[in-house]
Amino acid sequence: MKHFTSVNQIEDLDALILLAKQIKANPYANKAIGENKTLGMLFFNPSLRTRLSTQKAAANLGMHCITMNLNTEGWSLEFEDGAIMDGNKAEHIKEAAQVISQYCDVIAIRSFPSLTDKEKDEEDQVINSFAKYATVPVISLEGATEHPLQAIADIITIREYQTKKRPKVVLTWAPHPKALPHAVPNSFVKMMQLADVDFVITHPQGYELNPEVTKNSLINHDQNDAFKDADFIYAKNWSNYNDYGQILSRDLSWTVNPEKMALTNKAKFMHCLPVRRNQIVSDAVLDSDSSIVIPQANNRTYAAQAILTKILRNED
Amino acid sequence: MKHFTSVNQIEDLDALILLAKQIKANPYANKAIGENKTLGMLFFNPSLRTRLSTQKAAANLGMHCITMNLNTEGWSLEFEDGAIMDGNKAEHIKEAAQVISQYCDVIAIRSFPSLTDKEKDEEDQVINSFAKYATVPVISLEGATEHPLQAIADIITIREYQTKKRPKVVLTWAPHPKALPHAVPNSFVKMMQLADVDFVITHPQGYELNPEVTKNSLINHDQNDAFKDADFIYAKNWSNYNDYGQILSRDLSWTVNPEKMALTNKAKFMHCLPVRRNQIVSDAVLDSDSSIVIPQANNRTYAAQAILTKILRNED
Amino acid sequence: MKHFTSVNQIEDLDALILLAKQIKANPYANKAIGENKTLGMLFFNPSLRTRLSTQKAAANLGMHCITMNLNTEGWSLEFEDGAIMDGNKAEHIKEAAQVISQYCDVIAIRSFPSLTDKEKDEEDQVINSFAKYATVPVISLEGATEHPLQAIADIITIREYQTKKRPKVVLTWAPHPKALPHAVPNSFVKMMQLADVDFVITHPQGYELNPEVTKNSLINHDQNDAFKDADFIYAKNWSNYNDYGQILSRDLSWTVNPEKMALTNKAKFMHCLPVRRNQIVSDAVLDSDSSIVIPQANNRTYAAQAILTKILRNED
Repeated sequence: MKHFTSVNQIEDLDALILLAKQIKANPYANKAIGENKTLGMLFFNPSLRTRLSTQKAAANLGMHCITMNLNTEGWSLEFEDGAIMDGNKAEHIKEAAQVISQYCDVIAIRSFPSLTDKEKDEEDQVINSFAKYATVPVISLEGATEHPLQAIADIITIREYQTKKRPKVVLTWAPHPKALPHAVPNSFVKMMQLADVDFVITHPQGYELNPEVTKNSLINHDQNDAFKDADFIYAKNWSNYNDYGQILSRDLSWTVNPEKMALTNKAKFMHCLPVRRNQIVSDAVLDSDSSIVIPQANNRTYAAQAILTKILRNED
Repeated sequence: MKHFTSVNQIEDLDALILLAKQIKANPYANKAIGENKTLGMLFFNPSLRTRLSTQKAAANLGMHCITMNLNTEGWSLEFEDGAIMDGNKAEHIKEAAQVISQYCDVIAIRSFPSLTDKEKDEEDQVINSFAKYATVPVISLEGATEHPLQAIADIITIREYQTKKRPKVVLTWAPHPKALPHAVPNSFVKMMQLADVDFVITHPQGYELNPEVTKNSLINHDQNDAFKDADFIYAKNWSNYNDYGQILSRDLSWTVNPEKMALTNKAKFMHCLPVRRNQIVSDAVLDSDSSIVIPQANNRTYAAQAILTKILRNED
Repeated sequence: MKHFTSVNQIEDLDALILLAKQIKANPYANKAIGENKTLGMLFFNPSLRTRLSTQKAAANLGMHCITMNLNTEGWSLEFEDGAIMDGNKAEHIKEAAQVISQYCDVIAIRSFPSLTDKEKDEEDQVINSFAKYATVPVISLEGATEHPLQAIADIITIREYQTKKRPKVVLTWAPHPKALPHAVPNSFVKMMQLADVDFVITHPQGYELNPEVTKNSLINHDQNDAFKDADFIYAKNWSNYNDYGQILSRDLSWTVNPEKMALTNKAKFMHCLPVRRNQIVSDAVLDSDSSIVIPQANNRTYAAQAILTKILRNED
């Protein structure tokens, strides 16, 4: 595995899930493979779960981990080719990526989109520039368009809780006070397309995700209808994709509440966290037994550890 | 030991001091008990001694340590039950505490009081909410009302320097340009009430600490009189407790200086640090042999290591 | 080796370079000497290469490393003797340095100059105060007047790439939009004076470095003439030293470009990084085979590891 920045790079999902499961059963079994290996974690944005779980995963593998908030603790980076660097950007990504590659055996990066420049965001410039210039593997800790480690944790969790061979999984948009990126829903949609599930996306009219991501996944604008017989409800807000980065709806009738959960097949409730209570989901759902957001977050460690293991083993 | 957030949770002080003494004599003797254990240190406020000494203590025990400035590097937390999270708080403590508990075997937290809302501060909401929702032990690295690791370092230091069975220990208020919390004096008072010492508190009229903390400890408003025959002078500023969080006095006649120290029984001078020179204490005292603030700070490592050891051993 | 804060403290340069070379060939050979040793890295300013390479060097030696942004994560420090600390400075360097010395076996510090107060900057107050009050060795990660670890990486790199016994090395000033410190050129000049090289400094009239540093090193104000027959071009901007901290020239005719490089003896291009493209140097030079800035940065690890090794071995 060279880089891991997209769900698209997963070649054998079942093998990856099996690896994660083995790691979860015995997380410290491979402390030797990370010996004298350094993971550099570079943050351009806040992180809690990703930061802690990836650091934990690295430690479980015996790796040394260096964490930096690149913008505040390092130098601001220039990403444009041919730039005349007479402004505020002190260092070009070409040097930064090559230099960091000499100190770290794996580079992991979090960089959110602007949500103002769609074309730029879709280039996922920070992650992809590091992937281009780094001479070591690069892992996305959530880029502008994907959050693939989250999607691995999601499918591991679904596998653990599914009670039938082909469960029905519903990705539902839900209201949120702030404009949020598309990375989590994009990676989740891609993962559900790979997995053996009945998958439905539900959101208000006009809240379509990138059609190149959703492809022929089923979209139902009637949330109640979509929830019928669902085994998993995966709630997530995203800002508008067509009217890029805008909040066109904060309709609280889309909040996941007990009445909506009653329409399902005793579905489990999932969310990537952090979650806004009584916006995305009501307290009554999140505090009920149907919520599996906490064990879902726990699987972040094993998702990261599986990817790090594959990288350290030089596996595809 | 489940949580360690208050001096009140110490069941056997002599045993704890003995453990710290053994650790100090041989700090790396128990590196196996922390193997594959992670300490998560979460800071809502600045820290120097606590941060470094606790990280050192964890390393001495073979633990892996993850340090985060939660407010700037993670998400701002909501602590109110039933909150409609449509403002700036991105994550509820319920999720945060449970999630972090899955990545860390022990959670240590620093969170200062507002000094504007007495009732709220006395709830010590951040520390106590983590203690409520975390599924692993929580250690206070100084909360709104207590700094128990400091108090353990204080009593270790007094034991090392006392030359008589029952020394006289004086806690003296001293002037400071900023409004300071009550956590350090509260924990020190509680510790002195547990220890076998003659204890006197001296402060200007009206600067009484919380009477539920001071209980029947002796209070003397005449600093000079209080200092007579003292073996230890523990200086500390705190803001007013009755007129909550206000600075009612910056009276430099309360500064500890050589004239005042001359009233004592060749007392040792103590302070938790950081200390304002020529406000709390004059250079002449701090730079003299009577000052033991540096070895006192050194004992922070062994205080933290003793508590971590008890937690890792699942001792009461 | 007590402290390492200046090139002047290098007693045997050839032995140091040999040590670094041995470490580079076998970086993990001495993991035992750092066991139970803690490196405290204190940053008052941004850092990328220095931070990562020193942390990597410490890990290679088996050391535990604690990293702090002292100003934002700790307390702001007072450095003046006799200060009445009634302002914003919460802790005196006397306490801070002594206390940190109890938690760390080596203290490494980055602190940039003000570029407004020449006399103050030349005292290099932060680094030298730590060196004065710390009871453990102090390493400069770039102070106000020197960046000695950079200079070691520079000479290691020159040794690796030189093709004749006594290469010609040119330090050239180059334009930059911001006022930069003199630490890197100062340490480089001192290093070249120690090394067996033909050394020339070239810069615009009036851009003389501190004459106590340059001593009798050759200065040539004609950049083209200086470049003739050069084997190494080391580019660097610095702000004016006489008109202290001012930018008197941003003359782009001093930018290192292919025409200028054509004047040399197929010289290798060096820079400490971060480098402003198309200000200091043109893309065409930096992206050519003549640039060795990336392997130069790699040697930062072995420079730091050599110094840490000497300190841990208690060598001069």
